[in-house]
Amino acid sequence: MFIVKLGGSVITDKSKRYCFHVKTMTRLAYEIKKADIPLALVHGAGSYGHILAKEYQLNDGYNNKDQLKGFALTQAKVQELNSLVLSTLQEKKISAISLPPHAFLRLDDHRIDEINYSIIDNYLKKGFTPVTFGDVALDKTLSFSICSGDLLMRVLAKHYKPKKAVFVVDVDGIYSANPKKNPDAVLLKSASVGDLENLTTAVDGHADVTEGMKGKINTIKMIAQLGIDTIVVNGNKKNRLYKVLVGEETICTYIHGMKK
Amino acid sequence: MFIVKLGGSVITDKSKRYCFHVKTMTRLAYEIKKADIPLALVHGAGSYGHILAKEYQLNDGYNNKDQLKGFALTQAKVQELNSLVLSTLQEKKISAISLPPHAFLRLDDHRIDEINYSIIDNYLKKGFTPVTFGDVALDKTLSFSICSGDLLMRVLAKHYKPKKAVFVVDVDGIYSANPKKNPDAVLLKSASVGDLENLTTAVDGHADVTEGMKGKINTIKMIAQLGIDTIVVNGNKKNRLYKVLVGEETICTYIHGMKK
Repeated sequence: MFIVKLGGSVITDKSKRYCFHVKTMTRLAYEIKKADIPLALVHGAGSYGHILAKEYQLNDGYNNKDQLKGFALTQAKVQELNSLVLSTLQEKKISAISLPPHAFLRLDDHRIDEINYSIIDNYLKKGFTPVTFGDVALDKTLSFSICSGDLLMRVLAKHYKPKKAVFVVDVDGIYSANPKKNPDAVLLKSASVGDLENLTTAVDGHADVTEGMKGKINTIKMIAQLGIDTIVVNGNKKNRLYKVLVGEETICTYIHGMKK
Repeated sequence: MFIVKLGGSVITDKSKRYCFHVKTMTRLAYEIKKADIPLALVHGAGSYGHILAKEYQLNDGYNNKDQLKGFALTQAKVQELNSLVLSTLQEKKISAISLPPHAFLRLDDHRIDEINYSIIDNYLKKGFTPVTFGDVALDKTLSFSICSGDLLMRVLAKHYKPKKAVFVVDVDGIYSANPKKNPDAVLLKSASVGDLENLTTAVDGHADVTEGMKGKINTIKMIAQLGIDTIVVNGNKKNRLYKVLVGEETICTYIHGMKK
């Protein structure tokens, strides 16, 4: 089994409110269907979640009553994005089931406190494709906070020990430096946890309530430390996700899980 | 606290696929906001769920692989309806949170097997309005089946012992006989469990994978037996729901909970 995260910057335009990349998502759904392997999907909240979550400072937890409205609104908007994702998957005959984090887990100071794995297990066992996503969630300490798609990837990797964890992003993979700022940046074809430690890739300039590329590298390090291989691949380039899913060679960064 | 079910025949046109009654729902949201009392909401699946669920025979449980597609499609469509309900509630500044049954409970032969009450409790405590709805759900014995809005009302009544349970329907209340077939049918202003036992009200001719009016009366009997008062009120008539919520007199059927 694979776990695959479709990045918010791939399926939405992160700079514009509520802008879904329907063509890209339709192609990715087609590639997933063609690969025909069991997987669990995670998608980012993109412009449906981040802008509102920042406006209402949801990731800092409760500090005023107005935030309840912001929490509810953000939840509703990421659910709308999830409906769009579900409908493109279902058009390609994938039996996709929505599993919204705010309804099956609770955080505690940004970490998982309680989670109902059995509900995900049961859908997987029956042949469904569970689809979870970056969402707001209740938080034991902070009252509420953000459950990012990257956090979900860490949690699912730990629980399911998938064959591979795949991050579908809007660049070709992980670079030796930030490619948007440094012309000498080189794409890493493969990397170890040690290589990632040495990376100077900075958080990109993009305002983001989740953790940006630096956070993603931390997530990948944690997954690699579990012994799981991770692939970072560009979702805007045709057929790359498909090739990654079926094990064919393509442009991407392959991070080797640590041998135990 | 109240629990309120907005019937699928009120918020959708049950005879037409995916037809949401936005004006009615907007008015009901306004009445709920004006009443300003803590409540949990349930809504029916209406034409977003029943037609598909019947086509794929989802309530009979698993018998062919094609049903997985039907289950996923029905889940996605009732989620779309739920998004429409959420957005009308949020326009009226109600902090409504979606709690889809397929993500927080499991059935066993059409009854509740496992349910995560704490997630509902936590949203209520923080001042949110949880919104759950008729949905598909996994079923321990049948693989999957339907979790109707009426079943949710029974479960929430038992767990929360609300001050009142309110059913918002498309007729004025419960009649002495089926008013669509019998011109002598009289609206019952108030009723006891005993009165309901004697009722001859038949299931109306309307095809429905949930239980229709006969099922609703059984649900109300069960709630009354818990000692909880139930009100059946017409959601198509202005201000009636509001009056019920604030305790003013209006046309409806009031079913007295059994004294213990």
